[in-house]
Amino acid sequence: MNIGTFTIQHTDGAARAGELLTAHGVIPTPIFMPVGTQGSVKAVCPQDLKDLGARIILGNTYHLYLRPGDEMIARRGGLHRFMHWDRPILTDSGGFQVFSLSALRKLSEDGVAFSSHIDGSKHFFTPEKAISIQRNLGSDIMMVLDECVPYGADYQYTRKSLERTTRWAARCRAAYPQGGGEQLLFGIGQGGFFKDLREESIRQLRDIPFDGYALGGLSVGESKAEMMDILYHSAPLLPVEKARYLMGVGTPLDIVRGIDAGIDMFDCVLPTRNARNGTLFTSEGKLNIKRAEFAEDDSPLDPQCSCYTCRNFSRAYLRHLYQAREILSYRLNTIHNLSYFLSVVTAARQAIQDGAFQSFKSQMESIYDT
Amino acid sequence: MNIGTFTIQHTDGAARAGELLTAHGVIPTPIFMPVGTQGSVKAVCPQDLKDLGARIILGNTYHLYLRPGDEMIARRGGLHRFMHWDRPILTDSGGFQVFSLSALRKLSEDGVAFSSHIDGSKHFFTPEKAISIQRNLGSDIMMVLDECVPYGADYQYTRKSLERTTRWAARCRAAYPQGGGEQLLFGIGQGGFFKDLREESIRQLRDIPFDGYALGGLSVGESKAEMMDILYHSAPLLPVEKARYLMGVGTPLDIVRGIDAGIDMFDCVLPTRNARNGTLFTSEGKLNIKRAEFAEDDSPLDPQCSCYTCRNFSRAYLRHLYQAREILSYRLNTIHNLSYFLSVVTAARQAIQDGAFQSFKSQMESIYDT
Repeated sequence: MNIGTFTIQHTDGAARAGELLTAHGVIPTPIFMPVGTQGSVKAVCPQDLKDLGARIILGNTYHLYLRPGDEMIARRGGLHRFMHWDRPILTDSGGFQVFSLSALRKLSEDGVAFSSHIDGSKHFFTPEKAISIQRNLGSDIMMVLDECVPYGADYQYTRKSLERTTRWAARCRAAYPQGGGEQLLFGIGQGGFFKDLREESIRQLRDIPFDGYALGGLSVGESKAEMMDILYHSAPLLPVEKARYLMGVGTPLDIVRGIDAGIDMFDCVLPTRNARNGTLFTSEGKLNIKRAEFAEDDSPLDPQCSCYTCRNFSRAYLRHLYQAREILSYRLNTIHNLSYFLSVVTAARQAIQDGAFQSFKSQMESIYDT
Repeated sequence: MNIGTFTIQHTDGAARAGELLTAHGVIPTPIFMPVGTQGSVKAVCPQDLKDLGARIILGNTYHLYLRPGDEMIARRGGLHRFMHWDRPILTDSGGFQVFSLSALRKLSEDGVAFSSHIDGSKHFFTPEKAISIQRNLGSDIMMVLDECVPYGADYQYTRKSLERTTRWAARCRAAYPQGGGEQLLFGIGQGGFFKDLREESIRQLRDIPFDGYALGGLSVGESKAEMMDILYHSAPLLPVEKARYLMGVGTPLDIVRGIDAGIDMFDCVLPTRNARNGTLFTSEGKLNIKRAEFAEDDSPLDPQCSCYTCRNFSRAYLRHLYQAREILSYRLNTIHNLSYFLSVVTAARQAIQDGAFQSFKSQMESIYDT
């Protein structure tokens, strides 16, 4: 099989169980990708990620470009070698962070000028630059540079933006033609919260051959109902034979609904960020470990979970670590949350294979749709 | 063999290689004890400590009494079970932290009143209370309550203080008589920087039977020369047939010199605290990972080290993690520093067995005495 081959092995309704072949191995889908913003999935190390069964992680182009620098990483032999991770890596294009983190952005047809959130230094991203950085990082899956329009953007702006995003996507593809090497390149559909613009964006992107297709611009402040409306409308429009990726989403239930809509790949900072805030996802729902009710609770965080945290530590101990601001709190909570998110996509995959996805989805709704 | 049995297997000059039997297993000496202040050795988990070969860790009575509380820990089955560590634990008496961390201390014959550094609440430690707390924690080795006199204390104050410390030591022993259970109790010699007072303190303590004897009140602001003068004078006065513990000391070279003076046990926050500040101890000396010279250094932190950090990551990556304030930086640096400190005592033990301790000590001096 060639790198980039996506094989669908089972379907159950719109939900798919498949495999995507990358230069660093096969990714079973549906899959959740832990976020390793600055060359590290926060609070855990590569061995932890392997022990947790993570099959692919995400790196942030914007962050790595600014610090330590993509050329420096290229001189180290690429991001895999630099961070000692030999499984697949997907890198975003940097666009999302330019629009959410940096200051003094100025958008033009050519690209986007911005100031670093670290030191205020000035930079310019073009589609070609985004590809060049991701080539230096050596990720298995690269993303095109896009503009993620803010929630509330009007129809005219959103249309103008998605058309530019399409032109940028074509420039990314031209900078790295199909079959140009071992890295894959995914397109990103935009169009805000206008269904006809979502359709238009995807229609335009389908004409450019990509190795996979993403939906961007969701989970940007809209209601769950709006997100789901756009998700269920747009996902089926993405090419059926290619891997589909819902960017930056979401809660365990969002992910299960994404799978239900036909999405194969997910990433989100939720499990890692919330872990550090003491919010933990379990088979019995969400809990906040700082609550007094856990002070003398000798039971594991999640009785259904077999992660290192749940096998060895009590809620009482985890609450103590959180209250005492111990670094170990971040680590143990992160291990559990990532274990839970990874178990959700694994269980979803099994349910699709068993033709039992709807009952799995109902079960997740009974836990989380409260 | 009974719990508390200390066997000296080899000597080389004053240096000793032995074994101390505790309720949670044998401790080979000389030994370094990583400090687990609040029920966690900062930034690492129990499995890491086992992988590093840690044989005993230290817990802080003052911290655990204030948060989460010794009675709460007793209800969890003790500190071992609470923190999921099944090897030996030594707890200090809380005295050192009362004098260094708390506010509004008031010392009397009965004990010491103090305010919590966390919430200002008022507390009173007596010798009996220090034993009661450590009984609740269930440590393998308990320490007597003592007053650690500040550096610069005059002769009269130091003498008055050491006499009270002796009376407190006797009260601790009375509160937990020899053979009273599975926990051992160590006495602590004080006497500041006056040799005759050091002699007097140890002479008084020898009359109270303890399971081991410590030197306290060193590394409190004095010069290395003053510390070594008192150390080499006092260590030989401690009972030869009992384990000897130098509290809160020190650098790798301090530890090797302590072993040279006849000390068996050491603890210090240096490897863990310095790791978090980016200061790393290696077979080639101390280095600070934030220095620009390491920005593109692909070599391991310490080419002689086989810890997880040195096996898998470059100085360039460790510097990036430090600069980016990634939590993983604390973890990887701590793993290395603990590995190094543990390797020093292991190598010292081997050198004693081989009759080569002086050459080992010279080698350590050539690296660290600069």
